[in-house]
Amino acid sequence: MLDPASIRALTFDVFGTVVDWRGSIARDLGEFFGRRTPRIERDWAKVADAWRGKYQPAMERVRGGGRGFVKLDVLHLENLREVLAEFSIAGLSEEDIGHINRVWHRLDPWPDSVVGMTRLKRRYALASLSNGNVSLIVTMAKRAGIPWDTVLGAETARAYKPQPEAYLRAAEMLCLAPAQCLMVAAHNADLHAAAKCGFRTAFIRRPLEIPGKTHDLAADPGIDLDCADMNDLAAKLGC
Amino acid sequence: MLDPASIRALTFDVFGTVVDWRGSIARDLGEFFGRRTPRIERDWAKVADAWRGKYQPAMERVRGGGRGFVKLDVLHLENLREVLAEFSIAGLSEEDIGHINRVWHRLDPWPDSVVGMTRLKRRYALASLSNGNVSLIVTMAKRAGIPWDTVLGAETARAYKPQPEAYLRAAEMLCLAPAQCLMVAAHNADLHAAAKCGFRTAFIRRPLEIPGKTHDLAADPGIDLDCADMNDLAAKLGC
Repeated sequence: MLDPASIRALTFDVFGTVVDWRGSIARDLGEFFGRRTPRIERDWAKVADAWRGKYQPAMERVRGGGRGFVKLDVLHLENLREVLAEFSIAGLSEEDIGHINRVWHRLDPWPDSVVGMTRLKRRYALASLSNGNVSLIVTMAKRAGIPWDTVLGAETARAYKPQPEAYLRAAEMLCLAPAQCLMVAAHNADLHAAAKCGFRTAFIRRPLEIPGKTHDLAADPGIDLDCADMNDLAAKLGC
Repeated sequence: MLDPASIRALTFDVFGTVVDWRGSIARDLGEFFGRRTPRIERDWAKVADAWRGKYQPAMERVRGGGRGFVKLDVLHLENLREVLAEFSIAGLSEEDIGHINRVWHRLDPWPDSVVGMTRLKRRYALASLSNGNVSLIVTMAKRAGIPWDTVLGAETARAYKPQPEAYLRAAEMLCLAPAQCLMVAAHNADLHAAAKCGFRTAFIRRPLEIPGKTHDLAADPGIDLDCADMNDLAAKLGC
């Protein structure tokens, strides 16, 4: 059993957990390329999937020490150039490519995220613990109204999840023991990695993150809380 | 002339600029020691001054490389033990000493700070750029309603102001050129150090920070804006 009074801060995964990266990218790119002359038409959800598919391998080079720490905006940009080539999208200016890359700063929250997190913020400190870089999370939050108390994660730890340093450095900056931190994520692997560092864990069900997905539909055994959404998490914590 | 449209983020000094450290500490310690049996009576503003007087020398050891980076809570605690001895205050438990040390997390904002910064937040990203550690700034903000977009500064840069790294690392995390950042402070030395890094600068007049102070009464030549308070800064930036 998790005692809500034992928790002092909530640390959140962002992509998929707080915001709908796939739907947001598909909508944003559809509008951007639909406004161009001539229009460019692709299956933008597939483009989003291809882009996201390059995410873990790019971070893995940094995690493995094959490359020094670089922020996620940089990895996204390198991956974007490959994706554009793979989908035969050419003729874009560097300004266009920069704008497209910053779609990760313009992701929309799930409908329950802002209201649920606003309830949670009354009692707890809310920190992002994302692989997204600081400016990405700040810009996204200002656009969407996500009520962070502060932005932590890969860039402030200079380590990408699921490396232990990413979690431990966040707890250290919050001056909390890991057991006073509740990691909130829609992905079991993220929660298992946090739990290994001593964090308590809350799973948020996001069945629409990738339609038809067959993994991460519910919390694995050992996860402390299995929540339908952020409002359910707030209710389970008595907020 | 400063063009408000050239600025994307405001970075703030906190102690003295956003919050009244001296008055808050005097009030808090007066209440804490007044509740004890037997009461302990001292000139608590003098205690605050003595504590603050040890602040720069303690950071200087870290800046000079004589000591690895440690967060300000640690330096404050070491300095507090000296101050308690100097004022012959004894018989405190370690829990009491920890509570007193965290008075820096309980500082009250100047009357204009929250309303002025809430106006500024509508247009700009607001980041702390303080020598205070992350949890100190987060706890203070939750108690006082200070509307940060994120917390930056000494702990995320692992360098104490006025070292250039403290300013440059904040701009880098915001993905901004220094000239897109406006450093806001009630101390000219802080602003000169930021300006050397390429930041634009806004002085906030805080004549009550230390009653009778003869320095930092107005902006030095070369500072971009000289403001009566945070509302005046908001007005000067058209917010």
